[in-house]
Amino acid sequence: MRRRIYGDEHEAFRRTIRSFIEHEVVPHYAEWEADGAPPKSFYRRLGELGIPGIQVPEKWGGGGIDSLKFSAVLAEETARAAVTFGALRVHTDIVLPYLLEYATTEQLDTWMPGIVSGECMTSIAMTEPGTGSDLANIRTTARLQGDHYILNGAKTFITGGANAGLVLVVCRTSPPTETNRRSGLSILLVDAASSGFTVGRHLDKIGVRAQDTVELAFTDVVVTADRLLGEEGRAFEYLTHNLAQERLSIAVGAYAAAAAAVRMAKDYVAGRTVFGKPLSSFQNTKFVLAECHTEVLAAQALVDQCLELHDAGELSPADAAAAKLFCTEAQGRVVDKCLQLHGGYGYVLEYPIARLYADARVTRIFGGTSEVLKTVISKSIA
Amino acid sequence: MRRRIYGDEHEAFRRTIRSFIEHEVVPHYAEWEADGAPPKSFYRRLGELGIPGIQVPEKWGGGGIDSLKFSAVLAEETARAAVTFGALRVHTDIVLPYLLEYATTEQLDTWMPGIVSGECMTSIAMTEPGTGSDLANIRTTARLQGDHYILNGAKTFITGGANAGLVLVVCRTSPPTETNRRSGLSILLVDAASSGFTVGRHLDKIGVRAQDTVELAFTDVVVTADRLLGEEGRAFEYLTHNLAQERLSIAVGAYAAAAAAVRMAKDYVAGRTVFGKPLSSFQNTKFVLAECHTEVLAAQALVDQCLELHDAGELSPADAAAAKLFCTEAQGRVVDKCLQLHGGYGYVLEYPIARLYADARVTRIFGGTSEVLKTVISKSIA
Amino acid sequence: MRRRIYGDEHEAFRRTIRSFIEHEVVPHYAEWEADGAPPKSFYRRLGELGIPGIQVPEKWGGGGIDSLKFSAVLAEETARAAVTFGALRVHTDIVLPYLLEYATTEQLDTWMPGIVSGECMTSIAMTEPGTGSDLANIRTTARLQGDHYILNGAKTFITGGANAGLVLVVCRTSPPTETNRRSGLSILLVDAASSGFTVGRHLDKIGVRAQDTVELAFTDVVVTADRLLGEEGRAFEYLTHNLAQERLSIAVGAYAAAAAAVRMAKDYVAGRTVFGKPLSSFQNTKFVLAECHTEVLAAQALVDQCLELHDAGELSPADAAAAKLFCTEAQGRVVDKCLQLHGGYGYVLEYPIARLYADARVTRIFGGTSEVLKTVISKSIA
Amino acid sequence: MRRRIYGDEHEAFRRTIRSFIEHEVVPHYAEWEADGAPPKSFYRRLGELGIPGIQVPEKWGGGGIDSLKFSAVLAEETARAAVTFGALRVHTDIVLPYLLEYATTEQLDTWMPGIVSGECMTSIAMTEPGTGSDLANIRTTARLQGDHYILNGAKTFITGGANAGLVLVVCRTSPPTETNRRSGLSILLVDAASSGFTVGRHLDKIGVRAQDTVELAFTDVVVTADRLLGEEGRAFEYLTHNLAQERLSIAVGAYAAAAAAVRMAKDYVAGRTVFGKPLSSFQNTKFVLAECHTEVLAAQALVDQCLELHDAGELSPADAAAAKLFCTEAQGRVVDKCLQLHGGYGYVLEYPIARLYADARVTRIFGGTSEVLKTVISKSIA
Repeated sequence: MRRRIYGDEHEAFRRTIRSFIEHEVVPHYAEWEADGAPPKSFYRRLGELGIPGIQVPEKWGGGGIDSLKFSAVLAEETARAAVTFGALRVHTDIVLPYLLEYATTEQLDTWMPGIVSGECMTSIAMTEPGTGSDLANIRTTARLQGDHYILNGAKTFITGGANAGLVLVVCRTSPPTETNRRSGLSILLVDAASSGFTVGRHLDKIGVRAQDTVELAFTDVVVTADRLLGEEGRAFEYLTHNLAQERLSIAVGAYAAAAAAVRMAKDYVAGRTVFGKPLSSFQNTKFVLAECHTEVLAAQALVDQCLELHDAGELSPADAAAAKLFCTEAQGRVVDKCLQLHGGYGYVLEYPIARLYADARVTRIFGGTSEVLKTVISKSIA
Repeated sequence: MRRRIYGDEHEAFRRTIRSFIEHEVVPHYAEWEADGAPPKSFYRRLGELGIPGIQVPEKWGGGGIDSLKFSAVLAEETARAAVTFGALRVHTDIVLPYLLEYATTEQLDTWMPGIVSGECMTSIAMTEPGTGSDLANIRTTARLQGDHYILNGAKTFITGGANAGLVLVVCRTSPPTETNRRSGLSILLVDAASSGFTVGRHLDKIGVRAQDTVELAFTDVVVTADRLLGEEGRAFEYLTHNLAQERLSIAVGAYAAAAAAVRMAKDYVAGRTVFGKPLSSFQNTKFVLAECHTEVLAAQALVDQCLELHDAGELSPADAAAAKLFCTEAQGRVVDKCLQLHGGYGYVLEYPIARLYADARVTRIFGGTSEVLKTVISKSIA
Repeated sequence: MRRRIYGDEHEAFRRTIRSFIEHEVVPHYAEWEADGAPPKSFYRRLGELGIPGIQVPEKWGGGGIDSLKFSAVLAEETARAAVTFGALRVHTDIVLPYLLEYATTEQLDTWMPGIVSGECMTSIAMTEPGTGSDLANIRTTARLQGDHYILNGAKTFITGGANAGLVLVVCRTSPPTETNRRSGLSILLVDAASSGFTVGRHLDKIGVRAQDTVELAFTDVVVTADRLLGEEGRAFEYLTHNLAQERLSIAVGAYAAAAAAVRMAKDYVAGRTVFGKPLSSFQNTKFVLAECHTEVLAAQALVDQCLELHDAGELSPADAAAAKLFCTEAQGRVVDKCLQLHGGYGYVLEYPIARLYADARVTRIFGGTSEVLKTVISKSIA
Repeated sequence: MRRRIYGDEHEAFRRTIRSFIEHEVVPHYAEWEADGAPPKSFYRRLGELGIPGIQVPEKWGGGGIDSLKFSAVLAEETARAAVTFGALRVHTDIVLPYLLEYATTEQLDTWMPGIVSGECMTSIAMTEPGTGSDLANIRTTARLQGDHYILNGAKTFITGGANAGLVLVVCRTSPPTETNRRSGLSILLVDAASSGFTVGRHLDKIGVRAQDTVELAFTDVVVTADRLLGEEGRAFEYLTHNLAQERLSIAVGAYAAAAAAVRMAKDYVAGRTVFGKPLSSFQNTKFVLAECHTEVLAAQALVDQCLELHDAGELSPADAAAAKLFCTEAQGRVVDKCLQLHGGYGYVLEYPIARLYADARVTRIFGGTSEVLKTVISKSIA
């Protein structure tokens, strides 16, 4: 189905990215998986390609483009190759919008050059052991002493936490009030080189193995007061402000992974003979591919509509939640069926479909579980 | 989610239709169900509203609008009220395009005034006992004798066949060739008042009870040769030419039925108390509604994209097949879940959700079963 | 898969029932559907066959058999022919156990002869407009005045209510206490010939059309105090006591309907040719039938295990709930898929598969909705 | 639901196994996963416990028990701890039955003592690059030269191939005939210490990481003619003979994994608080657990019935296929839902549910894919 959302500039970007992935990512990916993360040089290379700074204003060296479509193209191309740039997506689609919205000019002057060049990757530390999606439970504290905060606590499930130069830490700067459990939370811009900042265990995950997910610990980390993002006590509000973009970004990646799975399965069944006939000629093969392709078309239509609405400033949080819910659930179904068409090879990680499968399971969980999304959606339609 | 495909003219049409349905259809619908069809006056009333002729050129009294969007609005509004105008949809979305594409000016001059005014409803007779979706099996014959055909045979599953004034009969005018089983089929424009034309049994269906589905029999019916539609032997080609529009039309109706089911369920659970709590406050209720709403949004996005492509002349048969497949399967799931939220009332036909359920089961079958559609789609992606 | 639960006596019973259905039910079934219920003579004929009294002690003319297996055979045979004896199943599997457990000898002497002979069908009136599954909301009242109760109120969704001679009416004999909303409910044995007892509207349902489902109204109906079943205020306890058997009975019927659907679909596809090939030879047909058959085997294994446990007095309410949940959900999926294999014929009620479909939708609702069952099951595993 | 298939001897065995797994497997499992296989000492320890020889006649030191129930208990207990003894299951449930059925007394005398003691693990080499489930494509050849065969070829997907002392190699000893593509295949008992026998790559899989799956290559391996299993050319027949047991064995493991997942999820939600409430108290949690528990009960009933039929010699290949199909598909659904209840932790491999998920994906593929099983089942019901 002809898509109507991309122009020539997006297709040119797509060609660049596709070539980059083919020549500079895929050949090294197994190594990155073994290491648990890409090397720092990879992020500098991304900087050279202008990727981390697409949405950053030109005065800090960015592309100054106020659109999520380039990010969408990137998501489509990584999925196509069954690779994930998880830390990059956190960096560009989650952290950057906070900085651009709430950081002071001074803070931006400090961090943006490194962010745009890929020298300084960023991460965001919300989840704690035991908090899950419930931010009000956060127990990491930052006590203000004169002109600096003393930060103490522990975080987990931090994507890209091992390589980040700057970590946005969500912490409690004052106790919750009786009427609002979510008050008293703030965001500090914490330099990963700070004394008392330690990277803990790397979590061993079902998939997304070329991407670190770590625990972080803060022991009397000194953070100067000018590293507060926005105002004290407003973290919850800030964190919900950008949820629509975060979720749409995940939805795009999920849609693209499903589309990639269909492409892989098509190629596989075309080249495989079973009981003397091409696997592609069996009616079950045809029907499964048709079902998967159809789900992908629906996901694509939804994603495209949301991308247009997002760029027009009209995408509601509930609609973004619905897009993430639909696309990640469809991804789960489609990738599973396309793996099955690969038979035993589908279970072996050297086949990209196996990586797509192992990677897929987390998208129904991170950025708001399907259950959290349903709660959001149900409120919107009540 | 804000839709982007409708303008003021569509919304004005929507208001007219909604009011018409509320005041002139719903109060009589139970009676039509008992009768198995609406009265002829209903179709004349539709004619007054300009509905049958929306896509007919102005010279025959039509609206001259080359867009499926008004038809889509109509589908949305009928679904909203859980009523079906099946014969009308056959008339406007299936039969009319054939006539406009292939009929001679003389034929159009003959039939169009009645079609536009609602005096003359139309129907199309393809299926025979035993043929199903396989047109090559058609055994109804039309032998040319001088300047007229002698038509003999039997048809079944004819929507609107009892009230039609004009029936397009697909028949065999010459035997199939060895290389092409589908050759030798033609379409005749048959006046229902012809001698030897008889309406047989009304089929008793699970749903769509206000709509007749009948058997037709032709015994030596004389049809003058100038009643041939297009050229002899090209029926198969003609019949596939318009499939995209037919299927998109069904897809729109299916999407709209699912959307209507969600609306009904929302209203029901808001007003119902179970175990001392509003049914709407149970987490299961919320989650089910959120899941259904999300599927509806995906179906809507797909339908909207297809409507735009269709009006731009770019909708491929395979994409229309995918839209019908997705929307009718989603309709099945969504209506089923929304009925369940009604408990026992969902099984009682005076509740519109029960009608939506009974009506829904046929959409995965008519206009190309889900299996036929998968075959079409799989070819397109091979 | 060889079943291990039936002996020669069950198979002999099966042959009798199958022949009875074939010769005395199927030929008249369309008529019963048009009438909304079988004639009274049908129930007398059942009495001659000994069916209503199978579980009734011999002293009242019954079979004295303490097993649900004959009832299971009956369910399997009715499903096989796509007919439903709903009122009979209420009579034998729901009402009779209450009477046998809680009625006085005098009450039994009064009613049992008619029950066994089929002269007097029974029904149970629980649901009221607005109560659903929540019995505590019951507003029908019975005020004790001297030696009789004065019964007032209205009931709905009463299966077999139009033909019943005896109706067990659940009513409030005293207000609920603060700590127990369910206290104060009692069951009265109400003669349908009583003054003030009226049968109201027949509900028009999606399916189960040969079975009446009616509203009942009680206006100052006089019920002598010796018509109280068991003790005052204990209705809730009584009604939950037999739930395991009620639900297992529905589970068996649901399993049997799914099995029947597979049989019908197998027969249909064997005799049908599509695109020049038998429909049974398409891989999709084979796979769908294999999936359905497999679900039926699982349902059968579960039902058989539960029947054995039930006859041994070991079936827990939660296990019966699980059996009903699994079998009715499987029925929904299987019947839907088997209908689809019939194409357009599946939507026409003269085909038994269409009746199976229309009838199936209620089994996930009555006797405890799937949601109520999940609540019961979740408590049992907490 | 009370199970009826196990006696005291099975429960005693269960206690032994559970303790063994808890104390001697779980503490080392992460290490085995890193190594890609358990150490040889593990298999000797199994030998001490009498496990490899349960079904071996007593004269070779085995338990002499002709029942699959002990194997079922083992499957249940490994699944309970989210560990897999894949090579052992191949050894006991697949290879041993071939030996006991077709090996000569001399062959048995040679190999059985080591097999029973765990000194000599076994494996079976069928699949080749490109053959999949289609044995007729096998290209590994064994040419008879005097009193020995010369074996050449390559195999892949060999479970336990790295540690096996004895490998049953399916190879071509003569070309297929025109009428039977499957003729000419034989099985050789190949000592892994033979010259020319090499273990190739270890396949990196989505899960089952404590279990090696390797490629094997044979280069002019000399196998004396007395190492032929049974007769020449009958491999295909032999390999299908034991399919029922192999598939039932997988079905049991799949059912047990699903049951284990429900147990893990129950424990997790009981200890986890979200938004100030126990996760177990949310209606969605309850409903999901109830759905999963219900599927597990159906799978259990089916497995139990099949185990009884198997021990009685009455389990048909099609019924075993249905059991595997149902249980592995249920495993897929149940484990997925139970993982989701764990939120982010479900994606981290230190949580057993994550291992269950990663391990589960292969059961719908090995031992006959779901598609192969559907083909088998559909033939049986045609």
